[in-house]
Amino acid sequence: MESNTQIYGIRAILEAIKADKPIDKVFIQKGLKGDLFKELETSIRKNGINSSYVPIEKLNRLTKGNHQGAVANISPITFYELENLVEKVKATKEAPLFLLLDQLSDVRNFGAIIRTAECTGVDGIIIQKKGAAPVTADTIKTSAGAAFKIPIAKVDHIKDAVFYLQASDIKVIAATEKTETSLYDVNFKESCAIIMGSEDLGISPSILKIVDDKAKLPLLGEIGSLNVSVACGVFLYEVVRQRR
Amino acid sequence: MESNTQIYGIRAILEAIKADKPIDKVFIQKGLKGDLFKELETSIRKNGINSSYVPIEKLNRLTKGNHQGAVANISPITFYELENLVEKVKATKEAPLFLLLDQLSDVRNFGAIIRTAECTGVDGIIIQKKGAAPVTADTIKTSAGAAFKIPIAKVDHIKDAVFYLQASDIKVIAATEKTETSLYDVNFKESCAIIMGSEDLGISPSILKIVDDKAKLPLLGEIGSLNVSVACGVFLYEVVRQRR
Repeated sequence: MESNTQIYGIRAILEAIKADKPIDKVFIQKGLKGDLFKELETSIRKNGINSSYVPIEKLNRLTKGNHQGAVANISPITFYELENLVEKVKATKEAPLFLLLDQLSDVRNFGAIIRTAECTGVDGIIIQKKGAAPVTADTIKTSAGAAFKIPIAKVDHIKDAVFYLQASDIKVIAATEKTETSLYDVNFKESCAIIMGSEDLGISPSILKIVDDKAKLPLLGEIGSLNVSVACGVFLYEVVRQRR
Repeated sequence: MESNTQIYGIRAILEAIKADKPIDKVFIQKGLKGDLFKELETSIRKNGINSSYVPIEKLNRLTKGNHQGAVANISPITFYELENLVEKVKATKEAPLFLLLDQLSDVRNFGAIIRTAECTGVDGIIIQKKGAAPVTADTIKTSAGAAFKIPIAKVDHIKDAVFYLQASDIKVIAATEKTETSLYDVNFKESCAIIMGSEDLGISPSILKIVDDKAKLPLLGEIGSLNVSVACGVFLYEVVRQRR
């Protein structure tokens, strides 16, 4: 169980959505019926909120309260809108640096990455609403509190974020082994955004097709890949090295 | 509970020590008496094996067998002797690269570091017998199997390893924020060993006094430190960058 703040009850969750509370995920009882429930479903869909249908036993484990078939996890941090974030950063910084996470799923990796991003001057982290590790109390602990210091934006699809960044003159570079270019041969001095992929699948092929550049870490051993938070650290510090 | 192979019973453990089995730790029942028990204590002390005195309840939880007051965790890997490791590497490689871990205690960090070390061509990892994270099934999983591929040596004190490496013409460089020198200004092209400290305390002051060089990672934010496995990755990849 996550140690996020929770709310339960259909009306309470509807109000939280109206009030723009940062909802991580809504758990809904399978087979639930009724007008109020339909209103909740519509509201979740309209606002692009992460949800899943679960047996009542799961809801009973999530809360001791009278949940009426719905429990929502509220994120401890408030997320940014991508457009606001990019505009704000571009207005104040000459060469912005963004980090995109394509469906990274491990909370500890996510926390370590937020921490590294804060240490390397990243201006904002962009994650996808669905499929991404949530910002839980564990994420915040692993981030050493950095999750409160660095802006995080949630988008419907990482692909949209790539297009938006490119339209804002920010070069998008994928960290992937599917290239011959070493990260030491890529120019990170100008405005750029680095994409890291998920632990098991890496970056989605549809995203690799649209990025401006790809870069890989040299791997000198037999093991074919690094832990994603370590790889992310090496990329971000290469930016620091080039920009110092 | 660790998923290491276990042995129990005083005689069995004595035989394992005689046979040079890689014992991680021996748990001994508090207040145990008798000649055989004294023999075990002497053998543990003579061989510098990690041990602790625990209530009988802890032993009963560790094993369902008739433990007679002693349970030992056997490491899934075999450790090297420092001297053999250094000699073997020096004989085959022009500029060896070693990694020393000063009482790193988190199993997942340890696993991620072993994995990174394998990816960056580290010739051997050196850890201290006492106070170090054990090589458990979890370590091996987090290392993505790298723990079977890269030699690991255990020493009584990291300090002795520093002196031995220095006497073998290997420069010892501490990764520490207690310096003004950035890692980008340190020469990693020649034979060298990098020391990483523990998660909470960093490198022991007595070791910082004897190293040849100190290097720090630039920290651009407000958070004063990185996750140790991320920091280690950035150091090891700076070696890769300089040596390519």
